[in-house]
Amino acid sequence: MSKLNLARKKHGMSPGSLVFTGEKKVEEITIDIFQYNQTSLIEKKIDNIAELKELLNPQTVLWINICGLHEVDKLERVRETFNINPLVLEDILNVTHSPKLEEYEDYLFLICKSIDYDPENKKVSVEHISFILGKNYLITFQETEGDEFDLIRERLRVTKGRIRKLGADYLMYRLLDSIVDNYTVILLQLDEIMENFEDVLLDKPNQDTIEEIYHFRKEINKLRRSVIPLKEIIYSLIKDIQPLIHKSNMIFLKDLEDHIKSAVETVENYKEQINNMIEIYRSTSQLKLNETLKVLTIISTIFIPLTFIVGIYGMNFNSDASPFNMPELNWYLGYPFVLGFMLIVVVVLLIIFRKKDWI
Amino acid sequence: MSKLNLARKKHGMSPGSLVFTGEKKVEEITIDIFQYNQTSLIEKKIDNIAELKELLNPQTVLWINICGLHEVDKLERVRETFNINPLVLEDILNVTHSPKLEEYEDYLFLICKSIDYDPENKKVSVEHISFILGKNYLITFQETEGDEFDLIRERLRVTKGRIRKLGADYLMYRLLDSIVDNYTVILLQLDEIMENFEDVLLDKPNQDTIEEIYHFRKEINKLRRSVIPLKEIIYSLIKDIQPLIHKSNMIFLKDLEDHIKSAVETVENYKEQINNMIEIYRSTSQLKLNETLKVLTIISTIFIPLTFIVGIYGMNFNSDASPFNMPELNWYLGYPFVLGFMLIVVVVLLIIFRKKDWI
Amino acid sequence: MSKLNLARKKHGMSPGSLVFTGEKKVEEITIDIFQYNQTSLIEKKIDNIAELKELLNPQTVLWINICGLHEVDKLERVRETFNINPLVLEDILNVTHSPKLEEYEDYLFLICKSIDYDPENKKVSVEHISFILGKNYLITFQETEGDEFDLIRERLRVTKGRIRKLGADYLMYRLLDSIVDNYTVILLQLDEIMENFEDVLLDKPNQDTIEEIYHFRKEINKLRRSVIPLKEIIYSLIKDIQPLIHKSNMIFLKDLEDHIKSAVETVENYKEQINNMIEIYRSTSQLKLNETLKVLTIISTIFIPLTFIVGIYGMNFNSDASPFNMPELNWYLGYPFVLGFMLIVVVVLLIIFRKKDWI
Amino acid sequence: MSKLNLARKKHGMSPGSLVFTGEKKVEEITIDIFQYNQTSLIEKKIDNIAELKELLNPQTVLWINICGLHEVDKLERVRETFNINPLVLEDILNVTHSPKLEEYEDYLFLICKSIDYDPENKKVSVEHISFILGKNYLITFQETEGDEFDLIRERLRVTKGRIRKLGADYLMYRLLDSIVDNYTVILLQLDEIMENFEDVLLDKPNQDTIEEIYHFRKEINKLRRSVIPLKEIIYSLIKDIQPLIHKSNMIFLKDLEDHIKSAVETVENYKEQINNMIEIYRSTSQLKLNETLKVLTIISTIFIPLTFIVGIYGMNFNSDASPFNMPELNWYLGYPFVLGFMLIVVVVLLIIFRKKDWI
Amino acid sequence: MSKLNLARKKHGMSPGSLVFTGEKKVEEITIDIFQYNQTSLIEKKIDNIAELKELLNPQTVLWINICGLHEVDKLERVRETFNINPLVLEDILNVTHSPKLEEYEDYLFLICKSIDYDPENKKVSVEHISFILGKNYLITFQETEGDEFDLIRERLRVTKGRIRKLGADYLMYRLLDSIVDNYTVILLQLDEIMENFEDVLLDKPNQDTIEEIYHFRKEINKLRRSVIPLKEIIYSLIKDIQPLIHKSNMIFLKDLEDHIKSAVETVENYKEQINNMIEIYRSTSQLKLNETLKVLTIISTIFIPLTFIVGIYGMNFNSDASPFNMPELNWYLGYPFVLGFMLIVVVVLLIIFRKKDWI
Repeated sequence: MSKLNLARKKHGMSPGSLVFTGEKKVEEITIDIFQYNQTSLIEKKIDNIAELKELLNPQTVLWINICGLHEVDKLERVRETFNINPLVLEDILNVTHSPKLEEYEDYLFLICKSIDYDPENKKVSVEHISFILGKNYLITFQETEGDEFDLIRERLRVTKGRIRKLGADYLMYRLLDSIVDNYTVILLQLDEIMENFEDVLLDKPNQDTIEEIYHFRKEINKLRRSVIPLKEIIYSLIKDIQPLIHKSNMIFLKDLEDHIKSAVETVENYKEQINNMIEIYRSTSQLKLNETLKVLTIISTIFIPLTFIVGIYGMNFNSDASPFNMPELNWYLGYPFVLGFMLIVVVVLLIIFRKKDWI
Repeated sequence: MSKLNLARKKHGMSPGSLVFTGEKKVEEITIDIFQYNQTSLIEKKIDNIAELKELLNPQTVLWINICGLHEVDKLERVRETFNINPLVLEDILNVTHSPKLEEYEDYLFLICKSIDYDPENKKVSVEHISFILGKNYLITFQETEGDEFDLIRERLRVTKGRIRKLGADYLMYRLLDSIVDNYTVILLQLDEIMENFEDVLLDKPNQDTIEEIYHFRKEINKLRRSVIPLKEIIYSLIKDIQPLIHKSNMIFLKDLEDHIKSAVETVENYKEQINNMIEIYRSTSQLKLNETLKVLTIISTIFIPLTFIVGIYGMNFNSDASPFNMPELNWYLGYPFVLGFMLIVVVVLLIIFRKKDWI
Repeated sequence: MSKLNLARKKHGMSPGSLVFTGEKKVEEITIDIFQYNQTSLIEKKIDNIAELKELLNPQTVLWINICGLHEVDKLERVRETFNINPLVLEDILNVTHSPKLEEYEDYLFLICKSIDYDPENKKVSVEHISFILGKNYLITFQETEGDEFDLIRERLRVTKGRIRKLGADYLMYRLLDSIVDNYTVILLQLDEIMENFEDVLLDKPNQDTIEEIYHFRKEINKLRRSVIPLKEIIYSLIKDIQPLIHKSNMIFLKDLEDHIKSAVETVENYKEQINNMIEIYRSTSQLKLNETLKVLTIISTIFIPLTFIVGIYGMNFNSDASPFNMPELNWYLGYPFVLGFMLIVVVVLLIIFRKKDWI
Repeated sequence: MSKLNLARKKHGMSPGSLVFTGEKKVEEITIDIFQYNQTSLIEKKIDNIAELKELLNPQTVLWINICGLHEVDKLERVRETFNINPLVLEDILNVTHSPKLEEYEDYLFLICKSIDYDPENKKVSVEHISFILGKNYLITFQETEGDEFDLIRERLRVTKGRIRKLGADYLMYRLLDSIVDNYTVILLQLDEIMENFEDVLLDKPNQDTIEEIYHFRKEINKLRRSVIPLKEIIYSLIKDIQPLIHKSNMIFLKDLEDHIKSAVETVENYKEQINNMIEIYRSTSQLKLNETLKVLTIISTIFIPLTFIVGIYGMNFNSDASPFNMPELNWYLGYPFVLGFMLIVVVVLLIIFRKKDWI
Repeated sequence: MSKLNLARKKHGMSPGSLVFTGEKKVEEITIDIFQYNQTSLIEKKIDNIAELKELLNPQTVLWINICGLHEVDKLERVRETFNINPLVLEDILNVTHSPKLEEYEDYLFLICKSIDYDPENKKVSVEHISFILGKNYLITFQETEGDEFDLIRERLRVTKGRIRKLGADYLMYRLLDSIVDNYTVILLQLDEIMENFEDVLLDKPNQDTIEEIYHFRKEINKLRRSVIPLKEIIYSLIKDIQPLIHKSNMIFLKDLEDHIKSAVETVENYKEQINNMIEIYRSTSQLKLNETLKVLTIISTIFIPLTFIVGIYGMNFNSDASPFNMPELNWYLGYPFVLGFMLIVVVVLLIIFRKKDWI
C-alpha cells in the first residue's frame, strides 16, 4: 500500500487507530527480554505476550525489546498488558513520526531515530525507535534488529557494573547514548564523502557531481530532521523533573546532551560546508567561462578580420575589364604589402588585448 | 464584483458590516443538523432558522452545519439566534481571513482552512471553514459541501462509540482532525509532483518546467499560509485553559497538534526542497553552458585560423607580375607544405587544450 | 530648503524645536471641528484658535481636524491650548517620523501613515497623520485633506448610530480603521500590477521591466515601513490598559488589529512574490541563454570546419608546377568526393549532437 | 606602531594596562572646562590637572572636555583625581572599542562614536568619544576637536535656558543628541550618493562603479557598527533606573532614543537598498548579455552557412578533367540559382528566428 | 587510529570511558606546578603524581599545568587525586569537544580553545585547553606547550602584584585573558590577509584566488566555532553566582567578556566581508564577461557578413557560359562598387552599435 493510499485510508479514522505506516523489514515480530538486577540476569525470547505481565517484579529491571512493527495485534496486546494509551501505540507504528517525548502518569514515552548510512547507494536510512520507560521496566520498539543495541546487550551479559546496578532509566540512557554515538560514526563517514566532493568540485565537476551533491544535501537534511529534535527532547528530560529518572542519573543525561549537541553542530556545519562548496563551484565555473570566452574572443577578433582581408583578394574581378578592378593583384609588391598589412593588424590587436589585460 | 471593488465598497463601513467576499459556490445555503447523544441521533435539514433555537437541549449535542455563505440575511438570523457577536459573522463571511481563534464569553470562534488540490490545473484551492463551539452545540460554516466532514457524519450514524459519548468539543476536534488528515493526503500528492519535477529538471528542463515550478512554489506558499497559523491555534487551545473544552479531551488536542506539526514540517521541507531544486537547476545549467561554449571555442580556435591560412592561398595575386607575388603557389612542395603547416597548428592547439584540461 | 540643509539647521537645536520637515501641500492650514453627542452635532471651520478651548465640554466629543503642517505658529498655539508636550509637536511636524504611540498623563499621542498610490507614476505616496486623544476630544493632524476621513465625516452627519454614541476613542478607532481599510484597497491595486509583471517577465522581459520591478520593490518597501509599525502600535493599545480607551471598545481594536495583521501579511507576501519573480526571471533568462548558445555552437561547429574544407580547394596552388600541388583538383571524382566527405562530417556531427541531447 | 604590533605588545599585560590604540590626531592634549550654573559661567583651559579637583562644587555643573588621547600620563592623573577605575581608562584609550555603557558606584561610563564623512575620499571616519558622568560633573574624551560640541558650547555661553538650569545629565543628553543629529546629516549625504549610484548602475555600469558600491557598502557597515549599539545603550539608560539621571530628564532620553531609532532604521534601509541595487545590476547585465549573444547568434547563423556555400563555388576543381567536377559553374543559370538558394536559406532562417521570438 | 575508527571504538563504551581523540603533540606528559602566595613562589616539575596531593595547602595557590593528553593513565591518577568526575576527564581528552562550562560541587570545569595561525600553510590550528578550578588550586590541561601561558608564568615570577595576591580564580582569569588576547592578535593577522584578497579579487582573480578564499572562509568558520561559545561561557560565569569566584574579581571577568565580545564581532565582520568580496567578484566577473562578448559580437557582426560578400565574388562561375554568371566580375566599376558597398555595411553597423551604446 503506497503512503498516499495509506494516508487516505487513515483519514477520518478514530484517534488511536492503529496502522503501521512503514515497510515490513522483518518476517516476524520478535520479543526479547532481559530481566536483571546486580546478582541475576535472565535473557529469553517471549512468544506468549501474557507472560510479560508476570515478569514485572520490583526487584529486577525488565527490558522488553520488540523488533518489527507490522503485527499490529501483538503490539496491541503488549499495549494492553502495560496499560499504555492507544495514542502512544499509534505513534509507535507511525514510522514517519518525528522524535518526541511525552509524559504520562506511569510512564515516559520517547521516540527517536536511529540512523544508518549505506555507502554504496549513498543513502541515509532512518529507523524509528520508540521507548516506553516505566517504574522498573523499559520497552523498546524497533523496525528491525539494529546492531546499536547489541553492544548494550553484551555489556549486560558480561559486566556487573553500573548498567546492572542502576535502574531502567539508566538502561534507557545507555541505549540512547548508543544511538547518539552511532550518529557520530555516521557523521564522520559523511565527512570523508564531503571532502571528496570538495576535491572533485574544484578539479573536474560534471553533471553527476552536481546531482550527487544535491542528493547528499537531501540526505543531510534527512539527518537533520532526525537529530535536531532529539536535542530538544534530551534537554527537556534534564530540565523538567521526571519522577521516573533518578536524580543521580542526571549527570549522564547531561553528558548525553553534550554528545547530541555536538552531533547537531556537526550536521549544521556540514550543511554550511555544502552551501560553501556549491558557491565555490559557481564562482570557479564563472571564472572558467570567462577564460574560455576570452580565448574565443581573442582568436575570433584576430582571425575573422584577417580572413576577410584575404577573402578580398580571392575575388575574381576581371582586372582586364577595367583598371579599377583589383589592380593590386598585379602590383609588384601586392602580396608582400597585404601580408605586411595583416601583420600590422595582428600587432595592433595584440597591443589592445595586452592593454585590456586579456593576454 | 471584483475584490478591488469590494474592498472599496467596504472601506468606511461600520465594523461588523456583513459582506461576503468569496464566490458563490453553491446555489442555496443548506443547513443540516445532527442532534445526538449516546442513545439517540436525529439528522435533518433545516429550512426555518427559528427551529434552531428549539433544538438546543442540555441532554444532547447539536451540530449545525451551514453550507454556503452568500445569503447574508440567513446567516444573520443564525447569528442572532445564538447571540453571536457581529464581528464574528464578518470574519465568517470574509473568506480571505487567516485562520484565527477567539474566545468569547459563551463560545469559542475558530477559523481554519480546508485544502484541496486539483491535479489537472495544478492548483491548490482553499476553503474557508469557521467553527462556533458553544456549551453543547457546534456550528460549522463552509463555502461548499466538502467531503472531509462526510466521514465524521458516517461515524456519527454508525457507531455509538466515543464520538457519540463525548461532547461538542470532541466533535470539533474530530472535524479539525479530519481537515488536518486531509492536509497530509494533499501533501503526499504534492510530494509525487515534486519528485517528478526533480527528474525533469535534471534531465531536460525547459521554459515550461521553470514556470511550473514557479507556480508550484506559489501553491506551496498558499498552503503554508493556511496550515501554519492553525498550528498556533491548536497550541493556544491546549495551553490556555478553555472552559468549553473538557480536560479529558486535551489528550486528543495534543495528538492533533502533533499531526499539524508534522504537516507544517512537511510543508517547510517542501519549500526547502523546491529552493534546492532551483539551485541545482542553476548549477547544472551553468555547467551545460560551460560545456557548450568549450565546444564552440575549441572548434572556432582550431578552424578559424586554418580557414585564414587557406584563404591566403586562395588570393589571386598575379605571380607573373612580380616574383614576390605568391611564389609559394608555384613551389614544388607548396601544397604539401601548407597542409603540413596546418597539421602542426592543429596538433599544437590540441596539446594546449589538453593542458588546459579542455579535452 | 532641501532635507539635508534642514537636518543641518536642526542639528544642535534644543529638543522640542519646531521645524516642519515636509513640503507644503496646502495653501493654508484649515481647522475643522465636529462637536457631537448622540443628540446634537455642530460642524464648523475655526479661524481663531482661542475658540478651541471653549469648545471643550464633558457632554460632547470634540474632533479637531487640522489640515496642513507648515504654519508652525498656529500649531504651537493649538499645542499650548491643549497643554501638549513640545516634543509631541516636534514629531507631528517631522513627516519622516515612523509610526509611534506615546502615552502622556492626559492624552495619548499616535502617529500613523496614510498611503496613496498613483497608478500613473507608479508611486506610493505616504501621508503623515498624527492623533492626540484626550478625555473627550481628538485632534488629528494631516498634511493634506485626504479623503479617508470624509467617509467618517459623512457617517457622523447622517447616522445617530454607534459613532455618535461612543466617545472620542471610538472615533479614533474609526479613523484608524478607515486608514487601514485604505491599505487593503491599495494592496489590491498593487496586486493587479504585480500579476501584470509576472506575465511580462515570463514573456518578453526587457530593461524597462526590470527597472520597473526594481522601483516597485522600492515602493513595496516604503509601504512596509508604514504598515508594519502600526501593527505593533495597535497591539500595544490592546495589551496595555489605557485609561483613555473604554474597555467596551477593546473588541473594535482587536478587529482593527486583525485587519492590520492581514495587511502586513499581504505586504510580506508581495515582497516574497517579487523576489520569486526576480528569481524566475533569472532562471528563464539563463535557460534562454543556453538555448541561444546551443544554436550558435551547433551552426558554428558544423559550418566552420566545412568552410575550411572548401577553403582548401579554393587555394590557387599551381598544379602544373608539381604533381604534389593539389592533384585532387584534377581527379575525375574530386568534387563528388569532397562533397561526400563533407556530408559524412555533417552526419557524424549530427550524431554527436544527438547523443549529447543537443538536438 | 601597527595595530598588529600593538595587539602583540598588549597581549599578556595586566588588566587596566593603558595603551592608546589610535593615531595621534592632535599635537597636545587640551583640557577645557565649563563651570556653570544658572547665574554664572566660567570657561577656561586647564594646564595643571591638580586644579580640576578644586573645581568640583555641588552648586555648579563642571564639564571637562579632554581632547587628544595620546598622552596617557595626563589622562592617568585625571583618572586618579576623579577616582575612576583603571579599566575605564583602558577602554577610553582603546579607540576600536564598541559603544558601551557601564555603571559604577559614583559615575556612569559611556562610549559612543561620532561619525564624519569625507565626500572626496568617500570615507566614513569614526571618532571614539567617551563620557564619564558623575554627580555634578561630566568628563568627555575626544580624539580630536570635533565640531559637534561647539554648538553646545555656544548655547552654554549665550542662553540661560534649560541647558544652564538642568544638571550634568542634561548636558550629556545634549551632547549625545548633537552626535546623533550629526548621524542624520551624514545619512542624508549618503542618500544623495546612493541615488547617484542607482542612476549609474542602470545606465552604464563599469568596473569602477562596482568597486565603489563595494566600498560604499563597507562604509555603511562601519556606520552600522557605530550606530546600532548606541540604540541599545540609550534604551538601557531609559529602562534601568539610573540614580545619576533625573527622572524629569527621561523624556529627553526617550526623544533621543526616537532619533537614534530612526537613524538605525535609515542605515538598515540603506543596506537593503544597496543589495537591491546590486541585484538589479545583475539582472540587467544578464539581460544585456542575452541581447548581445542573440545578435551574435543571429548574424553567425545566417552568414556562416552562406559563406560555406559561396566557398563551395570558390573551389578550383578542374571541370575540364571530369564532367562531375563542378559542372554547376558552367550552367547557364548557375549563379542566379546559387543566389536564389541563398536567399531561400536566409528567408527560412528569418522565419525560424521570428518564431523563436528572437527578432 | 583515524577519527572514524576511534568513534567506532568508543561507540557503546561506558560513559566516562577515557579515550584521547587528538594527535600526540608532545613526547611525554609534563606536569609543572606553581605554588605561590604573596610572599613565596615555588616552581617545579612533578614526576610523581602522588606528590600533588601534598602540595594542596589553604595558604597558597597551586597551579598545575599539564601538557600532553596522550598518557591516559597518568591523567586518570591526577583525576583520582583531586576527586574529579570521570566524565570531566572524558571531555578533557576529547579534543574535538566544544568550549563548555560545568559546575560541580567542589570545582568548576571549563573548556576553551586556543587558536594559532600558521601563515605559511594558511591554516588556523585549534588547541584544546581545559581548566579545573578548585578552592585554591587550578589545573590546566594543554595538548602542547603553547606560549600564551609563558607570559603569565613570567609575571608570577617577577611581580608580587595582583596576580600573586589574588586567588586561583584570578589566575584562571589571567590565563583566559591571555588566550583571548591571542585571538585579537590572530584576527589582526587575518585582517591583513583579507585585505590582500580584496586587491587580488578586484585586479586579477584566478582559480587559485577563489580556492584560497574558500579555504580562508573555512578557517574563519573554524575560528568562529572556537570563539563564539566562549562568549556564552564567560557570560554565564558573570551572571550565575559562582562560589569559587570572588565577587571582587567580577570586574575582571566583565572586562574579559568585553574582549571576547569584540573578538566575536570581528569574526562576524570578517565573515560578512568575505561574502561581500565573493559577491563583488561575481559582479565584476559578470561585467568582464559582458565586455568580452560585446567585443566578440561587434567584430563578428561586422566581419562575418563582409567575408560572405567577398566570398561571393570569389566563386568561379564561368561568366563565359552565360550572361547571368557573375557579370559583375567584368563590370568596369565592379570592384570599387563592392568595396563601397562593404563600406556602407560597416558604417551602418557602426551606427547601430553606437545607438545600442555598445561602442
